[in-house]
Amino acid sequence: MPKKIFFTPGPSALYFTVEEHLKSAIKEQVMEINHRSAQAENYFRTTVENLKSLMNIPQDYQIVFLSSATEIWERQLQNLLIEKSFHYCYGAFSNRFYDFASDWQYKPEKAESDFGKLPSTDPALIPEDTELITMALNETSTGVSFPVQEIYEIRKARPEALIAVDGVSAFPVIDIDFSQIDSAYFSVQKCFGLPAGLGVWIVSPRAMAKAEEKLSKGYSIGSYQTLPNLIKNAIKGQTTFTANVLNIYLLSKVTADMLEKGMDVIRRESKYKSALLYHTIEQHPLLTPFVEEASLRSETVAVANTQGSSAGIIDALKSKGLVIGNGYGAYKGKQIRIASFPTHSKEQIELLVDQLNAL
Amino acid sequence: MPKKIFFTPGPSALYFTVEEHLKSAIKEQVMEINHRSAQAENYFRTTVENLKSLMNIPQDYQIVFLSSATEIWERQLQNLLIEKSFHYCYGAFSNRFYDFASDWQYKPEKAESDFGKLPSTDPALIPEDTELITMALNETSTGVSFPVQEIYEIRKARPEALIAVDGVSAFPVIDIDFSQIDSAYFSVQKCFGLPAGLGVWIVSPRAMAKAEEKLSKGYSIGSYQTLPNLIKNAIKGQTTFTANVLNIYLLSKVTADMLEKGMDVIRRESKYKSALLYHTIEQHPLLTPFVEEASLRSETVAVANTQGSSAGIIDALKSKGLVIGNGYGAYKGKQIRIASFPTHSKEQIELLVDQLNAL
Repeated sequence: MPKKIFFTPGPSALYFTVEEHLKSAIKEQVMEINHRSAQAENYFRTTVENLKSLMNIPQDYQIVFLSSATEIWERQLQNLLIEKSFHYCYGAFSNRFYDFASDWQYKPEKAESDFGKLPSTDPALIPEDTELITMALNETSTGVSFPVQEIYEIRKARPEALIAVDGVSAFPVIDIDFSQIDSAYFSVQKCFGLPAGLGVWIVSPRAMAKAEEKLSKGYSIGSYQTLPNLIKNAIKGQTTFTANVLNIYLLSKVTADMLEKGMDVIRRESKYKSALLYHTIEQHPLLTPFVEEASLRSETVAVANTQGSSAGIIDALKSKGLVIGNGYGAYKGKQIRIASFPTHSKEQIELLVDQLNAL
Repeated sequence: MPKKIFFTPGPSALYFTVEEHLKSAIKEQVMEINHRSAQAENYFRTTVENLKSLMNIPQDYQIVFLSSATEIWERQLQNLLIEKSFHYCYGAFSNRFYDFASDWQYKPEKAESDFGKLPSTDPALIPEDTELITMALNETSTGVSFPVQEIYEIRKARPEALIAVDGVSAFPVIDIDFSQIDSAYFSVQKCFGLPAGLGVWIVSPRAMAKAEEKLSKGYSIGSYQTLPNLIKNAIKGQTTFTANVLNIYLLSKVTADMLEKGMDVIRRESKYKSALLYHTIEQHPLLTPFVEEASLRSETVAVANTQGSSAGIIDALKSKGLVIGNGYGAYKGKQIRIASFPTHSKEQIELLVDQLNAL
């Protein structure tokens, strides 16, 4: 049976070089070496260096590896927050960060909107004593993006607060000025096209200082995943636990491939693929864009309402070997979601569009 | 270059069938499918079923997947403990569970011993109001095992407390009566011979009830990794986050291979390999067993003191393509550690012993 092409918004298609890198990993016995060996440290350092180059991350920021973006929600609360956080809530994933803060008995506040829209980004809504402000650059459940310019405005208005940006399905495609944010994170099974099982956390010097401050005031900031411990290990090129060394290796390789291709090319292609997808959705008799405001539409995850059930469209494409995503949560059966990640070539997106138009 | 054979105590040699299973994983697109798809749920359920058969785990116990055994230390504290825990501390890993409880501001107590020995297991040392008692079946840092019979005695003396057993480098080789313990856990890069990046947690109905009790008393038991949430998802064959689906798939395959070989065969071979290793260490002019009390010697990780630095022995074996472990922590350079896990054939251990004897 020929392989399917996955356009699901994560896990998604593997980056097109991953299969070759897996073969090298077996040859180099990457899955058998000690996670504190020089060989493993080398993969760690190469990955960090490549990520910094790819996304233009300041040299004094640290990059550490955890198990998932979900875990990083928790670690941010434990390390970067004593009491008062403020969350932009406009989909399943941005809402969940707020829920985590409630579960852990912090005092979170929020600005919320219906799915498919963005809450008001007026900084006046953010209490002045907020310690941590969170938003998702790309709400994977709804296809709504948070414009980076709005983040910079929030920074100006609340310079004392830390800003934490969910880049899960946005990085490295969406460009952001890291010097204006303090915490950013993603998981590797979206735009980086890797198997699931690794979360990447990028932290500013201000974020590190906040963890130290919380600790010095007598609060617990956790055990093995405290920022001081994460960074102490990262300086040695090491993780705080026996992490997914294979994925760190694969990330070192895929980021090198992306650097060779060039972020400008990847970003230009991304804009083309996104425009083509949205043009198709707008013209299609069975589809309408879920996000009405064009400037808020995600470049990497296109979401469309379907006339009637989405199952017919999903199944028809699957029979052609093309796997797209269903609507998320309450929108299951009523929407389709299509990823256009760096691994998806222009030709693959054109093929998908042709098949959509033939429906 | 011919491949090296890893006898390190974890990460260690891959189970000998893993390379083939990885090829199937690529073919079946295991790394691209949705983690909540029927295909992924099927891998989850097969793995749980196989683990229950392999280790004779009662049907009313639940098995859930997290990122590492290290994470499971934290989740046990959050879910199974309100205040008072008691920890057997006799090596780097058993000590660390105690340290985690301190970091999180619980009130842990302990019975401790020097490395290479076991603390007194007299249950009278355990305060009567202890909620959670922890021990490592196999202390990977020192090669000391905790006799299962002692665990059953502790159970009799403190029937109200939950017992949590670290099976990291012991399961599935060491046989234990799960009905006498409430929480057990391991990571897959030891005896199961998988790449690192998955922790497995086995919980009794009493453990589940404790989490519910803690929650009902108004304490936080966490967010996504609460036992009720882990189990709610597990019943659907799902994880609580986008987990390492590849490793769950590989574990379903390796456990099936082990079932086919038979646990009785695996356990018989393990005893032979361990006896051969300890006989070699006792006879060797450069080596002495670190664990003096023969009945406490781990069957899966043999630890020996070396005359002079251990580097010479380690390097000499490495030049023959045989990789053994160094001493842990303060014992680095003074000891060697040798794993004899299910993937290590009798012939491989005999080869290693021949090379050791030739030094």
